[in-house]
Amino acid sequence: MEVRAVGPAVITEDTDRLAVKALEQWMSLLGAEYVITDDSSRFAAETATFATTQKVLAILRPGCRDDVRECMRIANCFRIPVYPVSSGKNWGYGSRVPVTDASVLIDLSRLNRILDFNEKLAYVTVEPGVTQRQLFQLLQDRRSGLWMDATGSSPDCSLIGNAVERGFGHTPYGDHFAQVCGLEVVLPTGAVVETGFCRFSGSQAGPTYKCGAGPALDGLFSQSNLGIVTRVTIWLMPAPEHFEAFFFQCNREDQLAPLMEALRPLRLQGILRSTVHVANDYKVLGGIQQYPWGETNGATPLLPEVMRRLRTRLKFGAWSGSGGLYGTRGQVAEAKRAIRQALKGKVDRLQFLDDRRLAFASRFAKLYQLLTGWDLSQTLDLARPVYGLMKGVPTEKPLESAYWRKKSPPPPNMDPDRDGCGLLWHAPIAPMEGSHIEVVIEIANRILLEYGFEPSISMTLITERAVACVISICYDRCEPGQDDQAMACYRQLKHELTDRGYYSYRLGIQAMSEMSGTDGHAALIRAIKDAVDPNSVLAPGRYEPAETRACSKTTASHE
Amino acid sequence: MEVRAVGPAVITEDTDRLAVKALEQWMSLLGAEYVITDDSSRFAAETATFATTQKVLAILRPGCRDDVRECMRIANCFRIPVYPVSSGKNWGYGSRVPVTDASVLIDLSRLNRILDFNEKLAYVTVEPGVTQRQLFQLLQDRRSGLWMDATGSSPDCSLIGNAVERGFGHTPYGDHFAQVCGLEVVLPTGAVVETGFCRFSGSQAGPTYKCGAGPALDGLFSQSNLGIVTRVTIWLMPAPEHFEAFFFQCNREDQLAPLMEALRPLRLQGILRSTVHVANDYKVLGGIQQYPWGETNGATPLLPEVMRRLRTRLKFGAWSGSGGLYGTRGQVAEAKRAIRQALKGKVDRLQFLDDRRLAFASRFAKLYQLLTGWDLSQTLDLARPVYGLMKGVPTEKPLESAYWRKKSPPPPNMDPDRDGCGLLWHAPIAPMEGSHIEVVIEIANRILLEYGFEPSISMTLITERAVACVISICYDRCEPGQDDQAMACYRQLKHELTDRGYYSYRLGIQAMSEMSGTDGHAALIRAIKDAVDPNSVLAPGRYEPAETRACSKTTASHE
Repeated sequence: MEVRAVGPAVITEDTDRLAVKALEQWMSLLGAEYVITDDSSRFAAETATFATTQKVLAILRPGCRDDVRECMRIANCFRIPVYPVSSGKNWGYGSRVPVTDASVLIDLSRLNRILDFNEKLAYVTVEPGVTQRQLFQLLQDRRSGLWMDATGSSPDCSLIGNAVERGFGHTPYGDHFAQVCGLEVVLPTGAVVETGFCRFSGSQAGPTYKCGAGPALDGLFSQSNLGIVTRVTIWLMPAPEHFEAFFFQCNREDQLAPLMEALRPLRLQGILRSTVHVANDYKVLGGIQQYPWGETNGATPLLPEVMRRLRTRLKFGAWSGSGGLYGTRGQVAEAKRAIRQALKGKVDRLQFLDDRRLAFASRFAKLYQLLTGWDLSQTLDLARPVYGLMKGVPTEKPLESAYWRKKSPPPPNMDPDRDGCGLLWHAPIAPMEGSHIEVVIEIANRILLEYGFEPSISMTLITERAVACVISICYDRCEPGQDDQAMACYRQLKHELTDRGYYSYRLGIQAMSEMSGTDGHAALIRAIKDAVDPNSVLAPGRYEPAETRACSKTTASHE
Repeated sequence: MEVRAVGPAVITEDTDRLAVKALEQWMSLLGAEYVITDDSSRFAAETATFATTQKVLAILRPGCRDDVRECMRIANCFRIPVYPVSSGKNWGYGSRVPVTDASVLIDLSRLNRILDFNEKLAYVTVEPGVTQRQLFQLLQDRRSGLWMDATGSSPDCSLIGNAVERGFGHTPYGDHFAQVCGLEVVLPTGAVVETGFCRFSGSQAGPTYKCGAGPALDGLFSQSNLGIVTRVTIWLMPAPEHFEAFFFQCNREDQLAPLMEALRPLRLQGILRSTVHVANDYKVLGGIQQYPWGETNGATPLLPEVMRRLRTRLKFGAWSGSGGLYGTRGQVAEAKRAIRQALKGKVDRLQFLDDRRLAFASRFAKLYQLLTGWDLSQTLDLARPVYGLMKGVPTEKPLESAYWRKKSPPPPNMDPDRDGCGLLWHAPIAPMEGSHIEVVIEIANRILLEYGFEPSISMTLITERAVACVISICYDRCEPGQDDQAMACYRQLKHELTDRGYYSYRLGIQAMSEMSGTDGHAALIRAIKDAVDPNSVLAPGRYEPAETRACSKTTASHE
């Protein structure tokens, strides 16, 4: 008897009976207070930043790894699908909502211990409940000489949650999954796997090196439903002798392609060692303020011609970019020279900012404008959190942009799920060439405006060769019809982009069908899933190709 | 009927009958010339740089990926274990010799096409037969501005072979498996899997980005027997504006630990962006000359007191190190400043070398010595190939050291397997701390000398936090008893090192039992192997935990 289904709840009487029995066992394991079944909690867990129909039967809050193992044992006994979340703040990609209907959430936020911290070798070992805020606090408390890398999401996001989703940040350690090792994973059956050298008893190198001998398994547990990651080691970067940020601006839309061509060699040559973010005007405006309802007399979308007027008034460009320079004073000076040279004639403004200048500008914004001609005062609010992120300081500021289309300002305790913020993200990867970027931009601009949304786009030079083009569809879920309109927009956007060969690096719960296909990759993931999760109880459907068993059987029976 | 076995051949009449039938089919597939069964070829394939007993039934030489798929289909039909090699030059770890007796080799050297080359995005896509020499030649022919990374093994080594074994080189792209993406893999059943974005039809980002959406599978095919890699994209580095190498020397053994402490911050801070290699005196001597039979009147091992005399005479230190600096002229100058400062008082000699100075020194070695006091003439022979490797120039020079204990000089066409060179490598990883390195060195020195071998050790600062301590047991296989003695030495070395928590990053065919264990990791690999290779025909035993099926079954049957 399986309760597995995608779409409307398939809760039969049998399911009910099994679920009741499972809940009894979970309660006796965790205590009733950690098995949450009240309507409002369940409703909250069923709510994302876009329309969903999946029901959540209960929320389990295990307190330790062995609780997680036992939870899985019980799930297997009664064939109840469970869906693990760390902090559950996967906004824009489905938040805490399970891919499959009638699931039980496993909320890992109580596993929030920092298990190890090593200043010399620059790493920290954490559980999935540990947040960005917690790690930042530890580094402050210890007066550590190490910096973490933070995402532009909430300080209360889980470090592991973001890393296993392969999220990215702003420092040279911005590729989060590349900077972790030594995973401890609870498999769907309850078995525990440690990866890298951690699997060997008494091993010394576990927290300092990715692989042990034999196949490297870490990748299996990123963007997957093959296990619950209960521990990782995260590498930290030593604070550089000197840090400086650079900000640049292009006034015209068509400057982007040549800009990419100019940035690529800097990235490839290691002059830029961290991610560079380039945002369009819509993205920048969303970081400064909410939708200009007055300006537009309440009409949406914000048309490009109005956007251009706002740009002129608020003094930002068609494209605004930023990046960090890390090193000795001499190295940073040298990088600045190379950047100035490479961006000459490509950008309309290029400004460098360090701690000293930031403090000065904050105190004497008016005077600074007189001296330099750069009006910092209105962009300081935007620049400061970005500047902080480049130094690994978590911030809540960028989250405000989720309230872009809302008619009241973001509350002090922001919760986009609760507050009806509409947000769908799509993040295709393109090779770092101007021509590719132009195609993605054209498609995104055209489709979002056509569907009545603002094409808010940021491009992250995520590696030496690739750009993550993060496109957000931002709306107000309280406006009737907007949920459907946004989803239709998302589908069309995805369709046209994949048609041209630009696939997303990460998928929302509504997009897991992208994993399907009759290719060997889909069949292999399916075969591994069958091997590790025979009852298909762990996050069924998550990054999992739809049934390809027939296909995989065919290829396996060559003889 | 299975022919699977480890140890002496288990060739029964049934096996013979099946093998004959399989060979017939392979011959009809590939043509008789590409199914090699003559005694001398088989004997050569059964020969490594240490004692082995495994028999090779035949050598298949498929010409394309689809040949490989068909070869696997036939292997499955008749349950004949096959063992793929790219160039087969896995010297010190087992060369071409299969882990399991009575296997058929699949030699991939005919798959030697360079499928794609992109100067702008700095990558090349190759088949497993493509060698270091071939890629280097391509870059020369195209007058490319890109550098490859080369290992210190033969120019005729396969690029893919080294990458999937997770080998390393000398430039900032020295971690070979970290610099590949977009694998094409033939699974044991013959199915084809493409990884990353390559799995999606028409995808643009395949060669520029590691992961697609969903679980990252690349790691499964490194150090494994889960598939045959038939294509990868290798990232190349742009030649820097300026390159400079540094060489340093410590006269006393006890300078190593503080040296490591001084180097770690440079590596962590990104001042040193490439692997740094530190070699002991034995390793250096082995790079300069063969065993000093005269000096020792034919006695072995070369004792530390004799070594010290030779060191003084030949003017090298207890420790000799080298690394490369890559960047703009300003960046390199800045790195030099930081290195000088960090190594002050830690080393007895620190010398920088660039193209200009190398050319000068070669021409005026004597004069140079007068001017600088540094006698380059005798170390130039050693320095030049190392210098070249740091610029990605493959060289045959380091291979000569495999002939260390031989009594005649290395022949022009070196082949350590054929020439009876004894070589066993063990390469434990240690955290980058002086105290750890000292433990490894003490164990290696003591045990190798005790067993009558020279402790030839090089330490590679392979990442920001970890050191690969490569220990070689080098001997003459033609000396009676030495094969056994070397293997006993290896076992003791491995035993004491793992006892202290230092495990090898890579295993020879004699050491695959290290993969075993009753932990979840072993069970998971076993479960995946069972899923992808139901007949266990692909390289059985290679990086594969011994039977843990019982264990994995237990954990899977919780209910």
